[in-house]
Amino acid sequence: MADDRPRARDIGLAPGVLPTGELNAITDVEGVRVGHVSLVSGEDIRTGVTAVLPHEGNLFRAKVPAAVYTANGFGKAAGFEQVRELGALESPILLTNTLSVGTAVQAGVRWTLDQEDNEDVRSVNVVVGETNDGYLNEIRDQSIRPQHVFSAIESAEGGLVAEGNVGAGTGTRALGWKAGIGTASRTLPATLGGHTVGILVQSNFGGVLTMDGLRVGERLGNYRFRDELETGLELDLAPEAEAGSIMIIIATDAPVSERNLERMAKRAPLGIGRVGGFMSNGSGDFVVAFSNAQRIDHDSPASGRSREVLPDRAMDPLFMAVVEATEEAILNSLLKAESMTGRDGHHMEAIPVEAVKEMVDER
Amino acid sequence: MADDRPRARDIGLAPGVLPTGELNAITDVEGVRVGHVSLVSGEDIRTGVTAVLPHEGNLFRAKVPAAVYTANGFGKAAGFEQVRELGALESPILLTNTLSVGTAVQAGVRWTLDQEDNEDVRSVNVVVGETNDGYLNEIRDQSIRPQHVFSAIESAEGGLVAEGNVGAGTGTRALGWKAGIGTASRTLPATLGGHTVGILVQSNFGGVLTMDGLRVGERLGNYRFRDELETGLELDLAPEAEAGSIMIIIATDAPVSERNLERMAKRAPLGIGRVGGFMSNGSGDFVVAFSNAQRIDHDSPASGRSREVLPDRAMDPLFMAVVEATEEAILNSLLKAESMTGRDGHHMEAIPVEAVKEMVDER
Amino acid sequence: MADDRPRARDIGLAPGVLPTGELNAITDVEGVRVGHVSLVSGEDIRTGVTAVLPHEGNLFRAKVPAAVYTANGFGKAAGFEQVRELGALESPILLTNTLSVGTAVQAGVRWTLDQEDNEDVRSVNVVVGETNDGYLNEIRDQSIRPQHVFSAIESAEGGLVAEGNVGAGTGTRALGWKAGIGTASRTLPATLGGHTVGILVQSNFGGVLTMDGLRVGERLGNYRFRDELETGLELDLAPEAEAGSIMIIIATDAPVSERNLERMAKRAPLGIGRVGGFMSNGSGDFVVAFSNAQRIDHDSPASGRSREVLPDRAMDPLFMAVVEATEEAILNSLLKAESMTGRDGHHMEAIPVEAVKEMVDER
Amino acid sequence: MADDRPRARDIGLAPGVLPTGELNAITDVEGVRVGHVSLVSGEDIRTGVTAVLPHEGNLFRAKVPAAVYTANGFGKAAGFEQVRELGALESPILLTNTLSVGTAVQAGVRWTLDQEDNEDVRSVNVVVGETNDGYLNEIRDQSIRPQHVFSAIESAEGGLVAEGNVGAGTGTRALGWKAGIGTASRTLPATLGGHTVGILVQSNFGGVLTMDGLRVGERLGNYRFRDELETGLELDLAPEAEAGSIMIIIATDAPVSERNLERMAKRAPLGIGRVGGFMSNGSGDFVVAFSNAQRIDHDSPASGRSREVLPDRAMDPLFMAVVEATEEAILNSLLKAESMTGRDGHHMEAIPVEAVKEMVDER
Repeated sequence: MADDRPRARDIGLAPGVLPTGELNAITDVEGVRVGHVSLVSGEDIRTGVTAVLPHEGNLFRAKVPAAVYTANGFGKAAGFEQVRELGALESPILLTNTLSVGTAVQAGVRWTLDQEDNEDVRSVNVVVGETNDGYLNEIRDQSIRPQHVFSAIESAEGGLVAEGNVGAGTGTRALGWKAGIGTASRTLPATLGGHTVGILVQSNFGGVLTMDGLRVGERLGNYRFRDELETGLELDLAPEAEAGSIMIIIATDAPVSERNLERMAKRAPLGIGRVGGFMSNGSGDFVVAFSNAQRIDHDSPASGRSREVLPDRAMDPLFMAVVEATEEAILNSLLKAESMTGRDGHHMEAIPVEAVKEMVDER
Repeated sequence: MADDRPRARDIGLAPGVLPTGELNAITDVEGVRVGHVSLVSGEDIRTGVTAVLPHEGNLFRAKVPAAVYTANGFGKAAGFEQVRELGALESPILLTNTLSVGTAVQAGVRWTLDQEDNEDVRSVNVVVGETNDGYLNEIRDQSIRPQHVFSAIESAEGGLVAEGNVGAGTGTRALGWKAGIGTASRTLPATLGGHTVGILVQSNFGGVLTMDGLRVGERLGNYRFRDELETGLELDLAPEAEAGSIMIIIATDAPVSERNLERMAKRAPLGIGRVGGFMSNGSGDFVVAFSNAQRIDHDSPASGRSREVLPDRAMDPLFMAVVEATEEAILNSLLKAESMTGRDGHHMEAIPVEAVKEMVDER
Repeated sequence: MADDRPRARDIGLAPGVLPTGELNAITDVEGVRVGHVSLVSGEDIRTGVTAVLPHEGNLFRAKVPAAVYTANGFGKAAGFEQVRELGALESPILLTNTLSVGTAVQAGVRWTLDQEDNEDVRSVNVVVGETNDGYLNEIRDQSIRPQHVFSAIESAEGGLVAEGNVGAGTGTRALGWKAGIGTASRTLPATLGGHTVGILVQSNFGGVLTMDGLRVGERLGNYRFRDELETGLELDLAPEAEAGSIMIIIATDAPVSERNLERMAKRAPLGIGRVGGFMSNGSGDFVVAFSNAQRIDHDSPASGRSREVLPDRAMDPLFMAVVEATEEAILNSLLKAESMTGRDGHHMEAIPVEAVKEMVDER
Repeated sequence: MADDRPRARDIGLAPGVLPTGELNAITDVEGVRVGHVSLVSGEDIRTGVTAVLPHEGNLFRAKVPAAVYTANGFGKAAGFEQVRELGALESPILLTNTLSVGTAVQAGVRWTLDQEDNEDVRSVNVVVGETNDGYLNEIRDQSIRPQHVFSAIESAEGGLVAEGNVGAGTGTRALGWKAGIGTASRTLPATLGGHTVGILVQSNFGGVLTMDGLRVGERLGNYRFRDELETGLELDLAPEAEAGSIMIIIATDAPVSERNLERMAKRAPLGIGRVGGFMSNGSGDFVVAFSNAQRIDHDSPASGRSREVLPDRAMDPLFMAVVEATEEAILNSLLKAESMTGRDGHHMEAIPVEAVKEMVDER
């Protein structure tokens, strides 16, 4: 889709010191699959669904250890209470727009009930995240249908992950430009444990863009509070002024307990900080983390009884990987997104690649 | 519906020392309205929706201070993250069955968007609670439709509240018997502040029933672990063995900050303890609390700027009222529920009123 | 000390359905030791220290899985942040009075540093709980000295546990009467897993006393808000009106993860509810839970790597045991405590055993 | 002390877009006072105490709204439970070393009891933070005495704040160099509300140093995991490998509720991320935030009843100010710190100012 636009590393933006995984994508964590359905229709519909599946088996019968962290709860994420309590994920993670969370939950439940071997399921917790694409998308239409959710799940696959204006990122914007889905990964060298951490973001938040240390937002004259600081405008207190959000998904193949997955999740916002976000009031900033190194068998009464987990003091490289890959995934979500016009003629410009490249080359 | 069955006080069960409100119902908090839609159809459908509305105005534009507390997160409650972050409720509280939460969210959003004056709404947080009625109800059918949700909301009214097998309590069971919706209230005397606290529960959990101190569960030979304790059966570790839950809604007209509403919410489980519940593993136990003494105006940039709230040290009578009324609401949910046969011929017997009455009279 | 006063079971108060451990004490969990130092001096000093040790080895080098739960944070408990983060306990649990927490922390650190094999320790987290005995004790004297803390730790032993006016319970009061230290336990039958749960409380809180279902507080005319309800007095909003608290320690030999230890801790307040407490505003209500079934080796880089833990669905008997034993431990803390006169002639009467016994016999 | 070393802005490191306060220090928030006591004695003692006082009155009788946030709980901070529950601070905030927290608590209590008008105080919550200076300081000596704490409090004053090797920062290190105390502030223009946010940090954590976007750590060959990445060394899993921590104190004169103070506190770690920290496992990262715009009168039963607070949607400039000033305060803590030799000949080099300056000038 946006193959002519670069990812961060293509133009010399390489945050951090740890090596990336092979694809520099969440799918570098073996077994993880991603599916997108994008709805771009008429003048007004610019939205979609993204599904992340932790492994290729039956997700309900073979759950994975998981955690959630709510950095800013101004959002409508669903399924968080149970993950927090039980430390397990038993569904695909679904991302969509703010006003379609209910549809995603309902479709996620239906899909689970209809999977082979799930004839006896009478309770399932579906995790859904969202950001508000209402600037470009006529979000009041609640245009996501269960079929879109099913398609996103069914089309999920490993390998390259589409980024930018795709799936749940179709209509989002961040840091003053068009944004969308982004992904990145880190594969630790053997000396640091050898595990992989993958990140996928749906970015839709504001701030003062920093790209790998470069003050891009300021240099391009496009950043939060520019008007108030430079032209003496009063801060706009209308509720729509800064509706934003980011959903961050962390996958790892490290055998990490739910407690340490939560600790990993708490580090992801540091990546937001590094690109110049500040978790604005209206920004629902949520993190979901899972490890697919082990399965919790729904049917075995003894499941969960024995666990081989990394000790706390082996967590540091994984923590660092989370911060680095989150930063880079956000950069990718911006760079890969193309300009878009949507609802009521609203327009979001893509970040100008050449200008950024110039700044990189200059330094 | 169950007019021939008594409430707790009708047979001498009067927990606590504080006086009840006039109706001994959540609707004693002025402005609070409750609506039920019950689905009882064929052999297998035994479910419904209950809606609780904090006041009679536009709930989105005139939000109320609110809090949530998750006592046991093994459940699918929705909308909790935003209430926790912002301390405000902007929708009806909807209760339904576990696998219809998505429908309730989606319908709650739709209903809000379609309210007069809400033409510009592009983000709304709908709070939904659930318990699993899958023993009596063919919950896999996801038989709740948006129309059921709309009807529950639209039919909401003050005054007497139907209890027992009604609305979201149609197919629930608790403590070994048929259960459902229950309500109770406390109106404090002027010396204790004069405010009212109302409780509504959707009860569906297990334990060893104690009614106002009487060991009813043991005396009727119907309590959790009876088999394991008396007949040497091994504990059943099948996931269905003890799927339970309780949703507790707290309403008050006391001007209480969101912080103190959360503290009120944390006291509600003490009422579960008093009736013999122990928040079993499979029991998603959630509390939502709101005060309708004040409104947070969505449209005023300054809204929330000035607040008149009770100081911490005036909270004690309200805390006690929460515990007492929760205990009593659960008792009502049991006493008012009638025997029911449902899915696959499953049957839940109502608690035998005469036997309970005898125990009360004896003491 | 108070050998002539009965424990709850001695007079027929036997809450719950699960069997007690052999001593009906926290020390029924093998390896757990309890030590008390009581300071009763002159007219004004009525305080002390209680130490609970999870096992007989080096607590720092062989940590145990642990969790904390803050039911009401109006208190000065120390060491909670690290237990919450790491899920491990590495010190004795120390209980004392509100204004001596710092001394207990400092002495607990010193004691740890001075243990054999701890020459290299440069960081240790000491867990301290407290309640405010300032009504009977001249708490402003901060009369606890490091030596008292060392003595409490060094004198800790298994076997019978002194209750009532002893250690950190020397000067406390609860529910209208003299209170103090109490303990109880449950040993599950093999069919329910066979594990033991032990509870120790330092009780110092208010409410309307219920003893195993009997409304003792009301019948003896001694309960919170009696004056406001019966004589028309206004609620006293002075900060001293209801300063209370309870510290609850949960020990188990069940191999339980830190996540499920936290869930056990969250059930303990239900026992407070069952005796008529309501977690009043001024009552700092804290729970510390640990399992000594396994050790986390400080020195092994791989420690924590492999864990054998009970699955979630085996937790129910343990949850129920927590509620039952907490209820009974509080009853014991009241029954075993003797009348006491202290600071400025303040007097707290012991609960009248004969009157309670009569009520039990009558029913 | 370190007057010949520059602050960040002196050499062109000026993170963010918002203007600083007059002194670029926490004391730009009117009424805030800071006091330091530094212990540098013999070869081995390199520690101290720093006290931050919210206003010039009686802190117990005129409490201030406050919040805490624990980003990584691997630390011994005290007094957090009560601030979390009540949203109020009633003592100086004390910073010291890990093994002297108990002394600081005890001295903080004593100091409060001995203040004029506090003769009736029988309960006070003292907030203490710490980092582990055990590399340079013989921390096992617990060399902080109550008198040091009293002196830090009594010497507290407004105006310029000493930074670097001073007070609780005397013996700390961060990001590969000597560190210590740092401070910074932001004063918003009138268009953004006009309020001031001040930050003070005690920095002692690891990572890959970024200074205002410059990759200083990498360029100077001094960063976490350099050995593992470049020389093939295995990750050191000894517990001492990366003991770190940071304490962050946020002061503001904006009238902010305790809920929004907590939200401000949750943004501070983004500043850690911006300088290259990742909240390593062993790093206890804690934030305390208070507003001195209003007082909560201990003695008035009605205190807290009426509050004038900023609405949520006015929070964004304050959130951004927290992130920017935290980043800058950390930079100052590094730049102002001088090289130090301490315990067992351990040496920490100060960050080379000239080298950093060169990098700044080059870009």
